[in-house]
Amino acid sequence: MSVLPVDEVLVTPIAFPDPPLLNSAGVHQPWALRTIVEVRCGELTGLGETYGDLPHLELVRRAAAALAGLDVFDLAGLTRRITAATGATDAPDKHGLTGASSTQKTLARVVSPFEVALLDLQGQAIGRPVHALLGGKVRDSVPFSAYLFYKWAGDDEYGPALGPAEIVEQAKALIDRYGFGSIKLKGGVFPPEEEIAAIRALRDAFPDHPLRLDPNAAWTVDTSIKVAEQTAGLLEYLEDPTPGLAGMAEVAALAPMPLATNMVVVSFDDLSESVARGSVAIVLADHHYWGGLRASAELAAICRTWDLGMSMHSNSHLGISLAAMTHLAAATPNLTYAVDTHTPWQLGVDVVEAPLTIEDGSVAVPDTPGLGVTLDPDALAHLAENYERCGIRERDDTAYMRTFEPGYVKRRPRW
Amino acid sequence: MSVLPVDEVLVTPIAFPDPPLLNSAGVHQPWALRTIVEVRCGELTGLGETYGDLPHLELVRRAAAALAGLDVFDLAGLTRRITAATGATDAPDKHGLTGASSTQKTLARVVSPFEVALLDLQGQAIGRPVHALLGGKVRDSVPFSAYLFYKWAGDDEYGPALGPAEIVEQAKALIDRYGFGSIKLKGGVFPPEEEIAAIRALRDAFPDHPLRLDPNAAWTVDTSIKVAEQTAGLLEYLEDPTPGLAGMAEVAALAPMPLATNMVVVSFDDLSESVARGSVAIVLADHHYWGGLRASAELAAICRTWDLGMSMHSNSHLGISLAAMTHLAAATPNLTYAVDTHTPWQLGVDVVEAPLTIEDGSVAVPDTPGLGVTLDPDALAHLAENYERCGIRERDDTAYMRTFEPGYVKRRPRW
Repeated sequence: MSVLPVDEVLVTPIAFPDPPLLNSAGVHQPWALRTIVEVRCGELTGLGETYGDLPHLELVRRAAAALAGLDVFDLAGLTRRITAATGATDAPDKHGLTGASSTQKTLARVVSPFEVALLDLQGQAIGRPVHALLGGKVRDSVPFSAYLFYKWAGDDEYGPALGPAEIVEQAKALIDRYGFGSIKLKGGVFPPEEEIAAIRALRDAFPDHPLRLDPNAAWTVDTSIKVAEQTAGLLEYLEDPTPGLAGMAEVAALAPMPLATNMVVVSFDDLSESVARGSVAIVLADHHYWGGLRASAELAAICRTWDLGMSMHSNSHLGISLAAMTHLAAATPNLTYAVDTHTPWQLGVDVVEAPLTIEDGSVAVPDTPGLGVTLDPDALAHLAENYERCGIRERDDTAYMRTFEPGYVKRRPRW
Repeated sequence: MSVLPVDEVLVTPIAFPDPPLLNSAGVHQPWALRTIVEVRCGELTGLGETYGDLPHLELVRRAAAALAGLDVFDLAGLTRRITAATGATDAPDKHGLTGASSTQKTLARVVSPFEVALLDLQGQAIGRPVHALLGGKVRDSVPFSAYLFYKWAGDDEYGPALGPAEIVEQAKALIDRYGFGSIKLKGGVFPPEEEIAAIRALRDAFPDHPLRLDPNAAWTVDTSIKVAEQTAGLLEYLEDPTPGLAGMAEVAALAPMPLATNMVVVSFDDLSESVARGSVAIVLADHHYWGGLRASAELAAICRTWDLGMSMHSNSHLGISLAAMTHLAAATPNLTYAVDTHTPWQLGVDVVEAPLTIEDGSVAVPDTPGLGVTLDPDALAHLAENYERCGIRERDDTAYMRTFEPGYVKRRPRW
């Protein structure tokens, strides 16, 4: 097989309807943004999916323009070209879930969709699934978790959820439909006692489902310790109760359950301090900001070596990301927690033909070449039109919340 | 490309002449042992090279018998099959350079040559060099170091080396021939003051060559600290002055130069304690005992994340290992120290046709498919005859030393 050069790269920003899900920064806007990357190589197309925020999109476009002629097997060359094309750029993540921005974090986010697309192409070229390129699958299906949100009523079948009873109803609806075997509640929306009540109601309704609570750093250290004590025995893990590695370490020292994070350990630079402080016991991987699937596999090796647990984080995403997450999880022996996904909240909208499906709480690992998903050109065109029409260019849950509550201020911690 | 199943695996123990090189455990026996692995898949052959000690050879044979039908891209399946075939075996490394044995270390050593052979096959199948399968090369040539040994006269052109002047002569001969730009002295043979004198003589003769000293844990903590003080400013790094992570940490706290190791951090299980104690600043990778090339790449990610330097260790080896080491080093950005190699001491003997060569101190990174080396069947047959004739079945430098000095005792530390 001679060099398989990249012929062209298409970058398409898209938007899809998003329900009014609440979190510690505000509320999801009516449209979620994503960027779809198509890397063409002869007859083959490799796919990637990433954030749609404009500063990021502009960097992705700059990167895309630099890839013609690159051999699809040359991942080191990919990073070199993107580094050269984007420079030492520092594009802040306005939503702020992954902490202060840095040039390294920015580069990792830009490289990721192209790395996934090249692995998709490599897999297609050699007739092997992407998981085979990551060391091979160690499981045939990947469990995902029911991701519960406090929410307002929206154009969805789930209705509002503002208290324990409605949260339990939402869980029942999601579990009925998808068979999830684990439950995660996005917290940080209401005072902690209300969210503890929701956890207790979930435990009563689902005595055997592992439960997680993720307030996105909405609590002080003292509040976090109190909540941890009051939820002893109820939670599989408590995710990001409080901001910062130092605060998390204070909570971790007293909490009866492990702490998890996708906010304080979000790049390789955060790991040594977290380990030294004992800030977290579980790291949520996310190939979109860790730099791709192979970088996530490196994170997995680190977690294994330091006896850190591994779970996986999700933002609003479509079927290319779901496939990439599934291949990564399939090939990562120590990713033993059910993976987060926003899939149910995308309400059946997708950009791929025949998306992978969640059944009995899990996605069957595809063994077809590459990622195993194919772009639906009509859906892409439609979602691209949404993007042009929707007027949103950067995710801003806080600003959107202010359109309903003018006095709303994002505060972490709030309680 | 459909499944590429392994057709058969050949395992051949070999022996080649080894000069009487001295170290803290004794003296090299007249024959060095290795095991050559050939994995056949259709017209293709993938190569691996590993230790030749009998307990290890027996496990390698058991592993080889379990691989028929395995897809050459299924590295997870490789580990699964070998684990099942060898069981939770614990084959001690008699030479003792990598510390206490464990089932995990044993498995890593057995998997390694097969992983290399499968990567060689993958590369040949897709027309890409092995470094492309490890993320891609980041350098076009890999620097190696002049590996100096105290030694007796033997059937080699280098003559005896028992003091500073002869060590300098040996360095000159190696550098004249290979162009090495770095120098490593294997110490732990004579009292430390004699070895310090050799380092000073080397510094005088080679003012610009980085120097390393490796006494293989021959010194107490106190002696190590004294030697470190007396060699301040002379050494690029001091390798394994004293046994154990605790002792190394005591030395590291006071030594003016970084400490390196291939004795106290020899598996993933050693890393967290080493980092917590600050035992070492530089880890010597070695794919033969870390579990293969991809495991070594994981080690590299850990070293990068914890700001540990990386160098590479060598045992007596032939050209398959040299090629594997070169591909790994080429694809490892943070492997910034010149790599150790015993190649000069093998005196031109090899098992491959047209071995990679060291010129101007470096090996040019091959860009041909796979490892880029081909077995020489006549050489293999000859070296296999050596094995049958030589009578050695396990490396034992100490026992061989006792045939010359009956009272010799291996002691670490000795001074």
